[in-house]
Amino acid sequence: MRTLWQHCHAATMVDGRYAIIKDAAIVTCAGLIEWIGPRSELRPVEAERTVDLGYAWVTPGLIDCHTHAVFGGNRSGEFEQRLQGVSYAEIAAQGGGIASTVRATRAASEDELFASARQRVQALMRDGVTTLEVKSGYGLDLANERKMLRVARRLADELPLAVRATCLAAHALPPEYAGRADDYITHICDEMLPALAAEGLVDAVDAFCEHLAFSPAQVERVFIKAHELGLPVKLHAEQLSALHGSSLAARYQALSADHLEFMTEEDAIAMAAAGTVAVLLPGAFYFLRETQLPPMEALRRHGVKIALASDLNPGTSPGLSLRLMLNMGCTLFRMTPEEALAGVTTHAATALGLGDSHGSLEAGKVADFVAWQIERPADLAYWLGGDLPKRVVRRGHELSN
Amino acid sequence: MRTLWQHCHAATMVDGRYAIIKDAAIVTCAGLIEWIGPRSELRPVEAERTVDLGYAWVTPGLIDCHTHAVFGGNRSGEFEQRLQGVSYAEIAAQGGGIASTVRATRAASEDELFASARQRVQALMRDGVTTLEVKSGYGLDLANERKMLRVARRLADELPLAVRATCLAAHALPPEYAGRADDYITHICDEMLPALAAEGLVDAVDAFCEHLAFSPAQVERVFIKAHELGLPVKLHAEQLSALHGSSLAARYQALSADHLEFMTEEDAIAMAAAGTVAVLLPGAFYFLRETQLPPMEALRRHGVKIALASDLNPGTSPGLSLRLMLNMGCTLFRMTPEEALAGVTTHAATALGLGDSHGSLEAGKVADFVAWQIERPADLAYWLGGDLPKRVVRRGHELSN
Ligand SMILES: [Zn+2]
Ligand SMILES: [Zn+2]
Repeated sequence: MRTLWQHCHAATMVDGRYAIIKDAAIVTCAGLIEWIGPRSELRPVEAERTVDLGYAWVTPGLIDCHTHAVFGGNRSGEFEQRLQGVSYAEIAAQGGGIASTVRATRAASEDELFASARQRVQALMRDGVTTLEVKSGYGLDLANERKMLRVARRLADELPLAVRATCLAAHALPPEYAGRADDYITHICDEMLPALAAEGLVDAVDAFCEHLAFSPAQVERVFIKAHELGLPVKLHAEQLSALHGSSLAARYQALSADHLEFMTEEDAIAMAAAGTVAVLLPGAFYFLRETQLPPMEALRRHGVKIALASDLNPGTSPGLSLRLMLNMGCTLFRMTPEEALAGVTTHAATALGLGDSHGSLEAGKVADFVAWQIERPADLAYWLGGDLPKRVVRRGHELSN
Repeated sequence: MRTLWQHCHAATMVDGRYAIIKDAAIVTCAGLIEWIGPRSELRPVEAERTVDLGYAWVTPGLIDCHTHAVFGGNRSGEFEQRLQGVSYAEIAAQGGGIASTVRATRAASEDELFASARQRVQALMRDGVTTLEVKSGYGLDLANERKMLRVARRLADELPLAVRATCLAAHALPPEYAGRADDYITHICDEMLPALAAEGLVDAVDAFCEHLAFSPAQVERVFIKAHELGLPVKLHAEQLSALHGSSLAARYQALSADHLEFMTEEDAIAMAAAGTVAVLLPGAFYFLRETQLPPMEALRRHGVKIALASDLNPGTSPGLSLRLMLNMGCTLFRMTPEEALAGVTTHAATALGLGDSHGSLEAGKVADFVAWQIERPADLAYWLGGDLPKRVVRRGHELSN
């Protein structure tokens, strides 16, 4: 069905800029944008349906390119203990931290994981999210990583949403491999990745490069195997220290390197040359009360594409709103609202390997968009939390509220 | 109609503590809580209706005790300019800042102000807010302050919500009185307050005590007039500097002193003695990237009641979520989740002079409550943004979603 959407303004986000079309018209057909431009230039079109958007502002559907939305339990009890003065060491001694999420995730059935993840993903969707990434990484063995990735696939089946599933088996060392990190990496490379990839459950491979997780040498083994399997890579890098994981990621043409507070100018140069997107995660920065800011000026100077994501996870960013991350990107990292919006559209699409089909309003791209009742695009980053009135269109079909 | 609500746990927030009742039952009648206690202690009751809450956690309806929800325009354009590097001085020279909100508020009709405020208040209500305060303070003359306060009253008429209207004529100096602050205070005391109070539009009187606003001596004149009119007072105090406005507020038995980052231990002692609530506003602290934290330890040590609010306003806290403020209270100010929840229930009610009727789940109080599908009360402060599944009951009637 061909639909004409009109009486709107469009922030098309082409090339990561607002690239505004005032009084725009959009023609969608078969789930794609067939034409977009100023309404005055629209040629007669045979549309089965014409929709008046009441001069809303239309943006691409938002893309959350870094989430750990699938997990068992939550860590609000720990959050409360910490604020009551219990130390990290005591919480760890009680079996808290990521270990508790691994236990709860392993203990949960696939249906239970799906039910809780769906609720969280629906919260994200209320901000106009039409595409998101979901990482595994709390299973840490073949059966449980598979369970998580199957839930990611099922989210796409049951919700009006595109989902990219990322295998993050190299997230933390499972208890079975305590003191044997290299053996776990071998297990990932020889058993887990080949099996999960063969089952079609993996769109990309990620790892956590940090002193408290895996070394650059260990990460590189995972990257080599991913490339053998024909899978693109991503990396959690430079969140807490400068190991140059982002340069390593660039060497393997990673789709993205994520966090990046401690990255250097050399890392930025390498990422720019490789086209690796910098995914910034202000929710974790905020929640952990970090003070080291990502090097915005170096990223800009070298032309690194910058994305923003929720990092939704139970330990360091229980973030249920991508629009809140726009505000945090601006308030905490001093991004402009235009950069922030590009970070959850154009550049987020590139960070997921979807740059050709998603992330901007252009003819030929998927017709995922949001019509916001706002005064100007900057409103999306300005309002702090809450819900903005909007209409969401996914593959050319308007979702009911 | 008598209703029995059961199969729930209750965080009653009596005396500002969780004061949990596991497997609770609540009997409501004529808009009030008739009985609450452990279900096992419930005596046979003739209820027309029994509601199964599916073992949700019930809390009092949330109370946002400090908002400027009524205003014309918004300042997202300024927000964007600032992030593009335009200085405060340049923006002020363009007529920006609070002056632009005053112009837009004066230019807006009562219906326009109502329509935009309703949208924002509905966003707050999505977090389970059943009572809120609305301040005037962007009109700054009799007709426009009246217009704002009438909108506040209309919000209560048209939404399922209790609203307290606070006259904040002493918010900023209107352009007509440039250089004549004392004359403006005289105008407030002799003309505005008496007229607005006579029209029944004022529940409390507030002022902004700061170098860039009004001096303690000017504030005191407003307080004296408020008391003459039989109205309680509140004060914006110690946000940017230590003028001891909070001690002044205590001297006038203020319901609350708000902001308070720069308050001293002596101020805390005075507030505790007067029963003046400390209303903390972490959204403004965050949005302005302040670094001076309110003196939590002094407030706790002297037993000052602590409330939390959104401070929803276009310039320094465009906050549309009270639950986000719970998280910011914990993350930024290191409140416990229990303190934060008391800050938007029990103590927020006291800050509005509603401590006898609102803010906790007790027999005789208004039956405003929220049944949250969460694992534990700390979840309310833990999740960052988004929407939590809930059922909201206002005066004994469940609101539709
Ligand atoms: Zn992550
Ligand atoms: Zn205020």
